[in-house]
Amino acid sequence: MKARLKALYRIRSDAHAIEARARALAVEQSVEMPVAAIDDPFVRAEIVGQVETIIEIEKGLFGVRIALGQETVGNDPAQLLNMLFGNSSLHDDVVLHDVELIPRLIETFGGPRHGLHALRQRVGAGTRALTCTALKPQGLPPAKLALLARRFALGGIDYIKDDHGLADQAYSPFERRVEAVAEALRGMERPGAVQYVPSLSGDLDTMRRQIAFARAAAITAVVVAPMLTGWSNFFSLVRENPAIAFIAHPSMGGVARIAPPLLLGKLFRLIGADATVFPNHGGRFGYSPDVCRALAQEALATGEGLRPCVPVPAGGMTVARVPEMLDFYGADVMLLIGGALLEAGTHLTEATTAFVAEVHRYPYDARPKDN
Amino acid sequence: MKARLKALYRIRSDAHAIEARARALAVEQSVEMPVAAIDDPFVRAEIVGQVETIIEIEKGLFGVRIALGQETVGNDPAQLLNMLFGNSSLHDDVVLHDVELIPRLIETFGGPRHGLHALRQRVGAGTRALTCTALKPQGLPPAKLALLARRFALGGIDYIKDDHGLADQAYSPFERRVEAVAEALRGMERPGAVQYVPSLSGDLDTMRRQIAFARAAAITAVVVAPMLTGWSNFFSLVRENPAIAFIAHPSMGGVARIAPPLLLGKLFRLIGADATVFPNHGGRFGYSPDVCRALAQEALATGEGLRPCVPVPAGGMTVARVPEMLDFYGADVMLLIGGALLEAGTHLTEATTAFVAEVHRYPYDARPKDN
Repeated sequence: MKARLKALYRIRSDAHAIEARARALAVEQSVEMPVAAIDDPFVRAEIVGQVETIIEIEKGLFGVRIALGQETVGNDPAQLLNMLFGNSSLHDDVVLHDVELIPRLIETFGGPRHGLHALRQRVGAGTRALTCTALKPQGLPPAKLALLARRFALGGIDYIKDDHGLADQAYSPFERRVEAVAEALRGMERPGAVQYVPSLSGDLDTMRRQIAFARAAAITAVVVAPMLTGWSNFFSLVRENPAIAFIAHPSMGGVARIAPPLLLGKLFRLIGADATVFPNHGGRFGYSPDVCRALAQEALATGEGLRPCVPVPAGGMTVARVPEMLDFYGADVMLLIGGALLEAGTHLTEATTAFVAEVHRYPYDARPKDN
Repeated sequence: MKARLKALYRIRSDAHAIEARARALAVEQSVEMPVAAIDDPFVRAEIVGQVETIIEIEKGLFGVRIALGQETVGNDPAQLLNMLFGNSSLHDDVVLHDVELIPRLIETFGGPRHGLHALRQRVGAGTRALTCTALKPQGLPPAKLALLARRFALGGIDYIKDDHGLADQAYSPFERRVEAVAEALRGMERPGAVQYVPSLSGDLDTMRRQIAFARAAAITAVVVAPMLTGWSNFFSLVRENPAIAFIAHPSMGGVARIAPPLLLGKLFRLIGADATVFPNHGGRFGYSPDVCRALAQEALATGEGLRPCVPVPAGGMTVARVPEMLDFYGADVMLLIGGALLEAGTHLTEATTAFVAEVHRYPYDARPKDN
């Protein structure tokens, strides 16, 4: 038998039913028909999913490891997701918990084309943590967003990303927005200074046009939500634009059903995300510290030959939390504060300066290495 | 204030906290920042989401109706999903329950280009229910799939769709599969006979090539999973191929978080699905009869000016269940039986014939009209 793709699921089940449920899951994610009715020897040997192990994690909750035929995935990232969890996403007793990154996946998809080190280099950040903020609210015209961007930039921020709601709306069309923001930042350029990161939307053609337009404005990074664009289209953009860094947004991540460290950390990284935005614990979203730590670890993990993907904790963060967040995540992180800076109103630049200063002054070397 | 997009959510919350939670949801799905920090009058009036009503459905469960600025959606289906549920999909206390199809959505997206009547006409089905089966298991080479298709066709089936796992794998590349199946069915053609429905996968370019190839083989319908391809790409295919009917597959529907009648019935229809496959009650999946009935009603609902989208209940159905399913769904349905026919092995054609006969002989007129 050829090398298999190993997927780990968590299933809620009675102990007496778990073996049958695990087998049914293996069938659902592979041949999706009664195995007894399959007489083709190749399909029986290589394609039918196989239950490898079942362990009881707690009463009524089982960890199930299933080996899937890697040929079913081909070279298509959306088909990877389809085979890992397509139909089973409709079952509410099962969560996709983890996937082993076998060499074939690494070779096929390749992970970040830039990653942590390049994103630091672009803004001259040395080994410190990166800073990021978001342009919003949507509804503002390009000129007002550009003014906000300029004020953020005056505060010394590294990256300014479009809020993920900013698409190609009548009140702020993509091209006019990119033009206005790029122009507003142009006067302030120095090597390694602020980078504007526009958000892409629409079908693959539209996103290609948006990237081309952004590149013409000397932009080198974009935000994309892979669950909205489809993984295959996200991956095509990554392959076609080796000079562009991609920041993944979790919109429609629906991560109640796929473990967040797997989806937003490991898999978005696998298909090319250079940085991954996720809801930090203690903010507007319900992720636990453990989930956030595991997610950051997946994004940065060494040993697979993939470049590190920058974890970007976000979702209601404040300047007051910067030291605690750096204690928690270390220096290999991009801190994203949006709303809390915008709340400063006329003092936006000062608030940004305070955020940036807090990140720069943090004693990175003093931090325990094994945290 | 302009006409708004009305979204209905179900939120689990304590009674004392629901008002604040509902307001937070309205902000999350619109401006995603503290409203007090917004001074732009257009944004305050037209863009900030507004809580319209909160009703207690049962203890701890609330129905919340939120009005969103329709301009935030633009003309992009993925942006519609982003604005309805993007970030909130990450919250596990909330389900997207329903959306009102305001005229602007209907005009922008247009729904099925063919729908129920055209799918009946293509196979000469009159007013009876349609029959469908699935080519599987994946792993079989094109020649074996073609042989299966021929045996299904000899049994008189209307539609033969690729299983959603069939993509562009080495053991069965899309073009060789389509060629082989089309060729196998060619000898059996008569007007209104069996239709082969291949499954598309990959990025937008790849799917376009697949459709072009399929059209050259005289194929008139395809299967696509919008949650895998991205809604914008699905919709582009629908617009670009007015002669092709689209059957939506629910893979990665993750419908524990979006009400299935909304996602698979109403919204897939809105963006152009001519038929929608979903897990029938009492099969391999956990949908209740009520959910299935509501889903079929959404797919077929009149009054919005959209063509009816054919409900395709599936997922472990059997020939024995045909009369009960027709009692339940009526004639406006496509019954999909895959595995149970394949189980017949060498008697596949006979099993298909029995399935088809059961559907044809059902006394459609005798059925109570208000069921």
